[in-house]
Amino acid sequence: MTSSNRSRIVLGPNQYGKAECRLVRIDRATDRHEITDLNVTTQLRGDFTACHTEGDNGHVVATDTQKNTVYAFARDGVGAPEAFLLRLARHFTTAHEWVTAADLAAEQYAWERIAVDGAGHDHAFRRTGRGTRTARVEHDGESTVVTAGLTDCTVLKSTGSEFHGFPRDRYTTLEDTTDRILATDLTATWRYAASAVERGLDYDATYAGVSDLLLATFAGRHSLALQQTIFEMGRAVLERYAEIDEISLSCPNKHHFLVDLEPFGLDNPGEIFFAADRPYGLIQATVLREEA
Amino acid sequence: MTSSNRSRIVLGPNQYGKAECRLVRIDRATDRHEITDLNVTTQLRGDFTACHTEGDNGHVVATDTQKNTVYAFARDGVGAPEAFLLRLARHFTTAHEWVTAADLAAEQYAWERIAVDGAGHDHAFRRTGRGTRTARVEHDGESTVVTAGLTDCTVLKSTGSEFHGFPRDRYTTLEDTTDRILATDLTATWRYAASAVERGLDYDATYAGVSDLLLATFAGRHSLALQQTIFEMGRAVLERYAEIDEISLSCPNKHHFLVDLEPFGLDNPGEIFFAADRPYGLIQATVLREEA
Amino acid sequence: MTSSNRSRIVLGPNQYGKAECRLVRIDRATDRHEITDLNVTTQLRGDFTACHTEGDNGHVVATDTQKNTVYAFARDGVGAPEAFLLRLARHFTTAHEWVTAADLAAEQYAWERIAVDGAGHDHAFRRTGRGTRTARVEHDGESTVVTAGLTDCTVLKSTGSEFHGFPRDRYTTLEDTTDRILATDLTATWRYAASAVERGLDYDATYAGVSDLLLATFAGRHSLALQQTIFEMGRAVLERYAEIDEISLSCPNKHHFLVDLEPFGLDNPGEIFFAADRPYGLIQATVLREEA
Amino acid sequence: MTSSNRSRIVLGPNQYGKAECRLVRIDRATDRHEITDLNVTTQLRGDFTACHTEGDNGHVVATDTQKNTVYAFARDGVGAPEAFLLRLARHFTTAHEWVTAADLAAEQYAWERIAVDGAGHDHAFRRTGRGTRTARVEHDGESTVVTAGLTDCTVLKSTGSEFHGFPRDRYTTLEDTTDRILATDLTATWRYAASAVERGLDYDATYAGVSDLLLATFAGRHSLALQQTIFEMGRAVLERYAEIDEISLSCPNKHHFLVDLEPFGLDNPGEIFFAADRPYGLIQATVLREEA
Repeated sequence: MTSSNRSRIVLGPNQYGKAECRLVRIDRATDRHEITDLNVTTQLRGDFTACHTEGDNGHVVATDTQKNTVYAFARDGVGAPEAFLLRLARHFTTAHEWVTAADLAAEQYAWERIAVDGAGHDHAFRRTGRGTRTARVEHDGESTVVTAGLTDCTVLKSTGSEFHGFPRDRYTTLEDTTDRILATDLTATWRYAASAVERGLDYDATYAGVSDLLLATFAGRHSLALQQTIFEMGRAVLERYAEIDEISLSCPNKHHFLVDLEPFGLDNPGEIFFAADRPYGLIQATVLREEA
Repeated sequence: MTSSNRSRIVLGPNQYGKAECRLVRIDRATDRHEITDLNVTTQLRGDFTACHTEGDNGHVVATDTQKNTVYAFARDGVGAPEAFLLRLARHFTTAHEWVTAADLAAEQYAWERIAVDGAGHDHAFRRTGRGTRTARVEHDGESTVVTAGLTDCTVLKSTGSEFHGFPRDRYTTLEDTTDRILATDLTATWRYAASAVERGLDYDATYAGVSDLLLATFAGRHSLALQQTIFEMGRAVLERYAEIDEISLSCPNKHHFLVDLEPFGLDNPGEIFFAADRPYGLIQATVLREEA
Repeated sequence: MTSSNRSRIVLGPNQYGKAECRLVRIDRATDRHEITDLNVTTQLRGDFTACHTEGDNGHVVATDTQKNTVYAFARDGVGAPEAFLLRLARHFTTAHEWVTAADLAAEQYAWERIAVDGAGHDHAFRRTGRGTRTARVEHDGESTVVTAGLTDCTVLKSTGSEFHGFPRDRYTTLEDTTDRILATDLTATWRYAASAVERGLDYDATYAGVSDLLLATFAGRHSLALQQTIFEMGRAVLERYAEIDEISLSCPNKHHFLVDLEPFGLDNPGEIFFAADRPYGLIQATVLREEA
Repeated sequence: MTSSNRSRIVLGPNQYGKAECRLVRIDRATDRHEITDLNVTTQLRGDFTACHTEGDNGHVVATDTQKNTVYAFARDGVGAPEAFLLRLARHFTTAHEWVTAADLAAEQYAWERIAVDGAGHDHAFRRTGRGTRTARVEHDGESTVVTAGLTDCTVLKSTGSEFHGFPRDRYTTLEDTTDRILATDLTATWRYAASAVERGLDYDATYAGVSDLLLATFAGRHSLALQQTIFEMGRAVLERYAEIDEISLSCPNKHHFLVDLEPFGLDNPGEIFFAADRPYGLIQATVLREEA
């Protein structure tokens, strides 16, 4: 076709790296060990054109090298995942001049001490499974974007949730309800203000505080729609944490359908539910600051 | 071939039912709600030959009917999963004379109250993810076998685990170690004595106690092999719980490999590990009582 | 407690090994390469009591050694998974006198050649994803049981399936149907006669033949119940393959619900279905030879 | 804090809809049935502010209504997933004035006819599992972006792949290789030119052609880096299909490590590999047309 005659085919945006480096660090500074459990993914951007177009690997920092770097850097301690990724990002963007940006991400799995005779054990741990902490650092030498988050956190309210007043068209069959189960797997990611990142932040304490606040808001506010609950969770975080510029929430509406027990001569006053898998609602929103 | 001439082809052992009925029950007896979250599977045995050989469904209690029964029975309360399955098992084996046995299983997911201002909320919950409780009832009218268990419980010891003295053959390359990470996803199932089931048991309290004891034993005992740890976990349970006849444990050995940092001029005194996915060790044992 | 006073706590059945050794073998005998892709699990039984009760590993062939053995044996070729497991089983049960039995299993993933200019490429492959072949060898020095199978094979009939005439009780709401979708993920395992194993078998050809026959029977026979279809599949295999003694089938009934389009002023003559995830029916049966 | 005093907290980008509507359509126009198997996700954008900030659902087309719409529209036929999503997108953005855009996606699963006596059966099918077709339509009333793709397509080359000449720094340990296994799970998405969408396209034929070309290019071109292979796959598509403006590829480098058999007195001339799970390389690139 004519259109292709006037254009040439070129390489567009590209990146590469090592995904899902499973890193466990044991801090043995005292007999009371600490455990850090991460899943780290590195992605580099820069001038990799010759590799794509000619197979010239002169600029390709091997993904194996990236993995080695992750493990070697952990030898000096890990700390908060955001801080660990910041160190790695600065390394990757300064070690080779053609690497202009790094996009690094980590998941962190939480562990708690196993109780023995009422006390937490020194070196035996149990994975909590209450949710996964996430962190991401995008650094291009000049700007640095630090994002933190929480995912796989399953929550449910057995009342205090309504849904009615929605428009009815030809395809609407859903009934209004003033009392339903509201359940979701919470995924939230919040972006720290550049100024806060520069000043330095207690990432661990902020993560804990934001997570608790998200859950308390989910629990404490009456819900007229999952959208409203999401917005209130986001607003609560921005109101309390000036160091956060923006927060995005993505929440499946995990439907719990009241089972019709009438055929069996039974009522069902909000007691027996079928928890469905698919389809599910999916509600996503960003809450942010608008400058005056 | 000759051998087949002397035989005829017949139906052997068979069963059928409804798998993975997701059942959530909210107890609203007071404003402080309680949540029960189960995944129930029913399997019936009996005289279903005509269905297999002729497509005659006269004996086939539809799996849809089985599902309805699960939800309808929940209307009268659920309680411990073992007790709920016992009620269902008695129903299924008495409702139709040709159904001679029921093999019923449930997984139970744990939830905890979301903390708001330091107190657990009345009707907002978070799934704990610390492990899944399992229950199984096999009932054939005469005998009843009740099994309880725990699965998907991930635990790790950062020290207190050795592995050495194993035989070396042509294919052995593993080095002896006197200090390694020991990590596993614990799956345990224990069988209650028939007499205890008959007398009645506090299944919830026993589950909690056995789970805690398994973890405390994992934590507290020095390990020379995962086999030894498994046996000690099982023995501890049988020593404390006379109402348990037998316990089986199945534990992957989730390898954590010490990363070689020497090429980078770094030592690694038991600090930095690569958590591997596959392959993994798989250690399984039953511990039981032998009559004198 | 009294009951436990008369008994002592002992080690019951136990086994251990290395699970999920991912083994890919490339046969480069000619430029037209062949690929074999296996997931091998080894489990050994024997006298491992001292390890469990005292942490004495003198009898514990390390799972790492078992893994090494799998890869080393593959150097001499793999062939059919059943044959490969038989070689391994004989090794494990003869290399150490206290290892009395081996229970070995493999999954095999199928690949096909990528088409280039209408012909299959010499060394580029695509995984077919049509199902997974399984094999298992249990060998205790005296007897050898070889089982083969097929799993994760998803099939569907858009007509030719009825379900009616089932008993109706208080909990029955399902309507009779004379035309429904029948869909399942087929899992079949068949046991070869000991005499056939001894004589030697073409495991690859038999696997291909049995798989095709299972599918053709599913397709070709009118179904009055999934139980009937399962029995006919099993019987067809035993009728054609005298070297097979017994076959077990496990088939979820993957429900496809006709969507009610009446609220939208539309009919739905068997056209539009919702494919549900959970719950699902689960139908299991063994078909075998009965000696006259 | 001061910074937050000068700003107010507002709703940012947001969307919502029904995810993973599993839709199976049987075309019974003749006795030779056709099956279409989709997983459809809808997301709507527009003025939903009042719902977020006040719980006013007057603008919220319920996700249940969206689901109903998907199933009702299927009654008139589905055809190519891109065409089906286009019809839905036009409906959603015209049915309610405050809905300004729709972002719709579908996965399509392929089925083939089961062979009976050498011929494909009329109404019995087997899922191929060779990869999943994807489609996405973003429509905001004015512009329409149609993207098609392929995912979960696992391919492997047993030779014809090198990797060397990469830079070596302090953290580099990987050796150069001139012959390695190259394996990936191919994910590709390509964007159709707006003009082509307007004119109308044979989406099914284009999908088939692009998929075959991607695989043939993977197979046929010698590889010096996975980046090079990806670029060549993308370029081949843009060279042949003028109706495609841009293609993005995301490919894990699924490492197959040559097993060291030397400790067992064996060589390993490129035959025995361990297929690793994690970490894996992850290579992503877009290939596009640059206007002259």
